[in-house]
Amino acid sequence: MRAFHDPRSLAHDPDRYFRRGALVAHPEQAQRYEVLRAAIDGAHRLAVPDDLGLAPMKAVHDSGYLAFLQEAWGRRAEIPDTGDEVLSGHFARPHMHRRPVGMIGLIGYHLADTSTPIRAGTWDAVRASAQVAVAAADCALAEGRAYALCRPPGHHAYADSAGGFCFLNNSAIAAERLRTSDALAAEPRVAILDIDVHHGNGTQGIFYSRADVLTVSIHADPATYFPYFAGYADEVGEGPGRGANRNIPLPHGSGDDVFLAAIADALATIDAYRPGALVLALGLDASIDDPIGALAVTTSGFERAARAIARARYPTAIVQEGGYLCEALPRNLAAFLASFDEGSRAR
Amino acid sequence: MRAFHDPRSLAHDPDRYFRRGALVAHPEQAQRYEVLRAAIDGAHRLAVPDDLGLAPMKAVHDSGYLAFLQEAWGRRAEIPDTGDEVLSGHFARPHMHRRPVGMIGLIGYHLADTSTPIRAGTWDAVRASAQVAVAAADCALAEGRAYALCRPPGHHAYADSAGGFCFLNNSAIAAERLRTSDALAAEPRVAILDIDVHHGNGTQGIFYSRADVLTVSIHADPATYFPYFAGYADEVGEGPGRGANRNIPLPHGSGDDVFLAAIADALATIDAYRPGALVLALGLDASIDDPIGALAVTTSGFERAARAIARARYPTAIVQEGGYLCEALPRNLAAFLASFDEGSRAR
Repeated sequence: MRAFHDPRSLAHDPDRYFRRGALVAHPEQAQRYEVLRAAIDGAHRLAVPDDLGLAPMKAVHDSGYLAFLQEAWGRRAEIPDTGDEVLSGHFARPHMHRRPVGMIGLIGYHLADTSTPIRAGTWDAVRASAQVAVAAADCALAEGRAYALCRPPGHHAYADSAGGFCFLNNSAIAAERLRTSDALAAEPRVAILDIDVHHGNGTQGIFYSRADVLTVSIHADPATYFPYFAGYADEVGEGPGRGANRNIPLPHGSGDDVFLAAIADALATIDAYRPGALVLALGLDASIDDPIGALAVTTSGFERAARAIARARYPTAIVQEGGYLCEALPRNLAAFLASFDEGSRAR
Repeated sequence: MRAFHDPRSLAHDPDRYFRRGALVAHPEQAQRYEVLRAAIDGAHRLAVPDDLGLAPMKAVHDSGYLAFLQEAWGRRAEIPDTGDEVLSGHFARPHMHRRPVGMIGLIGYHLADTSTPIRAGTWDAVRASAQVAVAAADCALAEGRAYALCRPPGHHAYADSAGGFCFLNNSAIAAERLRTSDALAAEPRVAILDIDVHHGNGTQGIFYSRADVLTVSIHADPATYFPYFAGYADEVGEGPGRGANRNIPLPHGSGDDVFLAAIADALATIDAYRPGALVLALGLDASIDDPIGALAVTTSGFERAARAIARARYPTAIVQEGGYLCEALPRNLAAFLASFDEGSRAR
């Protein structure tokens, strides 16, 4: 299939983050881009997409947040004692979320935790990844399927905030692109299936009160796993979106069969919704080998998952989410995309 | 006046916190207790109160939160990679605030920012400070006024979360103690006047939908100052509490006259409410000399403030909030309490 990527992904290169009381090495490394690209180079048709501007991002994200991301590094002199990474130690919270003015307050408003440092190249990288997602959405409509090598990932980003290594919600941007396409004009309904090991809380938040995008997330039980505060089965959407959000939390340590059964269950929900297109938020951190994972999916499990999803025959934009540096990471991506192609061609 | 304190305040001794991307020395030092006590020793009648148990704290705080504070240090082995301070890098947020299970999730649920490290003695210190506040409330009813040397401070703590150096909301605990006293049985209404340089967001949050505790906070404009996300003039309470919250944000750099005018304004609001007793949340960080302050109040300004508040003649529990180590800190406390005594005796 066609696989979109952009070397500007390398421009966001976080060094460390503050986790449970200490600064630790950041697992969402720029090298992920190179490893993932190398894994599929030759097997798929790689392309760097054109930049279509801010409009596809503005369809999902607040313009104040986009301006913040764009300006934060250049305005870091307004944040006393900031070093080579812009991060906050104070945060908007359930009881208080007025948007302040000034960079010191804004870092705590728009960065939801301590895992999303902004560095010199962050805006370039996240903007490029969003364009990669848009290109894959367009291509999925034209060719049935496409892969977006987005990095950094996106599914923990809300309309107005970064978190969990994510800045722009690439999967949500792809979904909005599909939903507003001419191809879906008659029935503008899109589904997002998120199989990253972490709940897609940002994606859920963005579409929580909307009926025109179905969000389904399969993930390790958040009661004892990031993002902790969302991702439970009883979160079903609100208002017009009630019934258009589904969470399938899995017991930690679950392997291929449990994962595949959850995917079959999710696909049944998606089939009932009858979307015109699908975004597959493809985290590979459900792998048994992932350094920060909590499930035990094998390469064979990813292959089976890919075939099952491909056989559903939706125009599908596969958007890279998590999956961290380990020997299995490139193998799992290559196997997933190959199996997806195979499943798409099967009768 | 009688001044309550407890040497167990020394048991909470934070070393550092994560602020805007870097670990920095923590300004809420145990030494504050010694400096503040020494400042008033001899001039006032010091006493260490009895511990009246958890009931006064449970009147304000969620029992799950109290259990967390009590157990967190002992259960730190359940939090991988935790060192000598229990802190979180992930946080409950506006879109997601389900209470997870397990200590890793709970630290992000109950600690709202990176400024409230839990160490071996934290629970002992915050429990002791809450008891100090209760004792001052009881004494205020009996003797007209009393001072509570609470440390760590409390006014940024919500019913279920620590934040801004605060764990238990000592001012709110004192207010509840007063409100439920026999002395106020006929008209159980209490006012809290918070003159700390930072908005008393936790106190506001605890009483936001209640009419029986009026909360008034005078502070540096939060648009560019902690706590950033609350403390604005248009936050007036909600539901039955609508009209029972007032915020008076001041331009940064404001001096004595602006501060005194705001206090006169606040006292007019309090007089109209006709409370049976007053809690004065006494931060001294409005001082022009405070190392993290944003206003320019002089010792003379604090003296005038004390006299003005004392002349209102409410039974008053003066609860220590912020005010950080500098040469002026002990002088300002001594001057404030002396002037309060003086104002109380004036005809």
